[in-house]
Amino acid sequence: MKVLILGSGQLAQMMALASVPLNISLKAYDVGSNEIVHPISKAKFNQDLDSAIAESDVITAEFEHIPHPILDKCEASGKLKPSAQAIKIGGDRRLEKSMLESANVKSADYQIVVSKDDYLAAIEKLGLPLVLKSALSGYDGKGQFRLKKDLDTETVWGQIANFLATSSERQAIVAEQFIPFDSEVSMVGARDAQGNINVYPITENIHVDGVLSVSLALSQRSAEHKQAQSMFEAIAHQLNYVGVLAIEFFQKGNELLVNEIAPRVHNSGHWSQQGAHCSQFENHIRAVCDLPLGDTALQKPTCMINILGIDKVDERLLEIPGLSMHWYGKSKRPGRKMGHINISGQNTEQLKEKLRDVTVLLDAKDFPALENAIALL
Amino acid sequence: MKVLILGSGQLAQMMALASVPLNISLKAYDVGSNEIVHPISKAKFNQDLDSAIAESDVITAEFEHIPHPILDKCEASGKLKPSAQAIKIGGDRRLEKSMLESANVKSADYQIVVSKDDYLAAIEKLGLPLVLKSALSGYDGKGQFRLKKDLDTETVWGQIANFLATSSERQAIVAEQFIPFDSEVSMVGARDAQGNINVYPITENIHVDGVLSVSLALSQRSAEHKQAQSMFEAIAHQLNYVGVLAIEFFQKGNELLVNEIAPRVHNSGHWSQQGAHCSQFENHIRAVCDLPLGDTALQKPTCMINILGIDKVDERLLEIPGLSMHWYGKSKRPGRKMGHINISGQNTEQLKEKLRDVTVLLDAKDFPALENAIALL
Repeated sequence: MKVLILGSGQLAQMMALASVPLNISLKAYDVGSNEIVHPISKAKFNQDLDSAIAESDVITAEFEHIPHPILDKCEASGKLKPSAQAIKIGGDRRLEKSMLESANVKSADYQIVVSKDDYLAAIEKLGLPLVLKSALSGYDGKGQFRLKKDLDTETVWGQIANFLATSSERQAIVAEQFIPFDSEVSMVGARDAQGNINVYPITENIHVDGVLSVSLALSQRSAEHKQAQSMFEAIAHQLNYVGVLAIEFFQKGNELLVNEIAPRVHNSGHWSQQGAHCSQFENHIRAVCDLPLGDTALQKPTCMINILGIDKVDERLLEIPGLSMHWYGKSKRPGRKMGHINISGQNTEQLKEKLRDVTVLLDAKDFPALENAIALL
Repeated sequence: MKVLILGSGQLAQMMALASVPLNISLKAYDVGSNEIVHPISKAKFNQDLDSAIAESDVITAEFEHIPHPILDKCEASGKLKPSAQAIKIGGDRRLEKSMLESANVKSADYQIVVSKDDYLAAIEKLGLPLVLKSALSGYDGKGQFRLKKDLDTETVWGQIANFLATSSERQAIVAEQFIPFDSEVSMVGARDAQGNINVYPITENIHVDGVLSVSLALSQRSAEHKQAQSMFEAIAHQLNYVGVLAIEFFQKGNELLVNEIAPRVHNSGHWSQQGAHCSQFENHIRAVCDLPLGDTALQKPTCMINILGIDKVDERLLEIPGLSMHWYGKSKRPGRKMGHINISGQNTEQLKEKLRDVTVLLDAKDFPALENAIALL
């Protein structure tokens, strides 16, 4: 079977690594360069997107910020999974909010802002503090604004007005009630074309400056897991979704509110490469290729640590039993996702001890959330 | 880091899949076609062996039947691990037998046969039944003869004489005492350049017509494991070995005798992809790249089932939790190793139940050892 992935970054690479043992061959479409490349070797194929679409059995995506004409072309081939609609919803916060309402799933109250009048109405309706996110490309905390007190109303509007003026016409701001959450959790799961769903246990995530730093997959925390699962099912069925879907939640007390969805494999699911029998990458490929979904149960408590902006870590990390490195083979840039570390223990206490060993070998300046992660164990 | 693998088959492919996350890039030398190819995509690089040797940091091998001039050329670069000597020993049963004697490790008594006089002397010295194996290329039971009773002495000599006459001048026969073994077990492990050794638990192997059919990695069976480990250490140190080494044993009662060694990752270690934290493929790459060795402990009882000569199995197998498919992407030929299935359970009893589910979906004619494997659990 032949699969074409829209996007040629680390998620495509990890999907390809999971596909080879299934006898599924992958090509990747580099949206930036408009080239078809091998997702692992990065060698270029001498062909254009149309010919790659024609020869593929299935088309899928590693990210949601794909030009709509390309999504529409892929959809027209009848091979795109998940649907163009699901991918577009993941890339536009307005569509996402409206879909969540249709699915009857709780998220923060919101208002769409394209003018100063909208902005003032949002303050009036939702109250302060407000979080204001760009509708398009809200990826990794870019294009986000906060209004904490009345005094800053004009200053923040200035920033937003400037942002909108320099953005495409399709851009807008989604103003949301600030949720004073206790923690951020996510659920990653797969749905197949027959509507079967397998979800991974919920993961607790620590973000630093809006970027994921550490994810912890500890156990099937029953109450929150069930709540997240029923919200996952409502959204996945609403979208008639096929593939791996990720949902990020704010947790306050025992209640979960959806923060956002990602119509793809997700950074907070990388732990599944070691902590589950079937990783999110394999499950995505199984789902879009109409193969049975794989086992998502937690096998071992696992922590995923993102490596941002550096291309080397102390090699003695590899001496720690249960630790696996995952480099993406990318060139270094400040803040860039360069790789991740998965570390598993037989139980939470052992994982905590191992994380302490990890902490000794990593520079706290590059890995600011590690102590917080240990404190959660 | 750049690694060149001599050989471009499934073992090179699985090493490459394990190398990508370590930021190690692999090229493979196809010994048959004399081409440098990508071990996963199989795309050809427009370069010759000399240039691939020059650009590599490390050279290693996926199999031992490599022309000696190529091994010598690689050795001369100072980059080959394990050494040419270790690889040659794995490819020549005469050298292997003599190395085992030097390492003071038990194996069946033997005699080298190149003439009828040698043959008759071997019968005299070792007694019947005799197993007679070609010194070169004893891979997967090819070039093996058996002499069970005096009456067949002339017939079997006829076969051997014919075999020798049509073989290279370097060929010979190693006559060995037949070992009436209770079971066949193997140990796979890694040794690094500093002499550190991590071994996987011993695996029980079921061969059909001389080809591995099923391997079972059950637990650290203490007595045999310790015995195998001390023999493994003796051999690995004797060879000053770097990389993954496999040793196959005959077990009779509580005693182990070495059957043969393989200076490489080994079919009986494929279970480690799911049953251990660090697979044999990753450990080989770690060892030859001078990275710390990874965790070899058994995480879950695991069974590896070889897929021979067929390129499709019932896809419902993937519904069984804890089951992973590993296809090699090769074209079908009778008896050819096409892929393998790994299946893990939380414990031996659960593994047995899952194997029963597997049996329902596989044709017993293609998988003749499954019932035997279940009986061993």
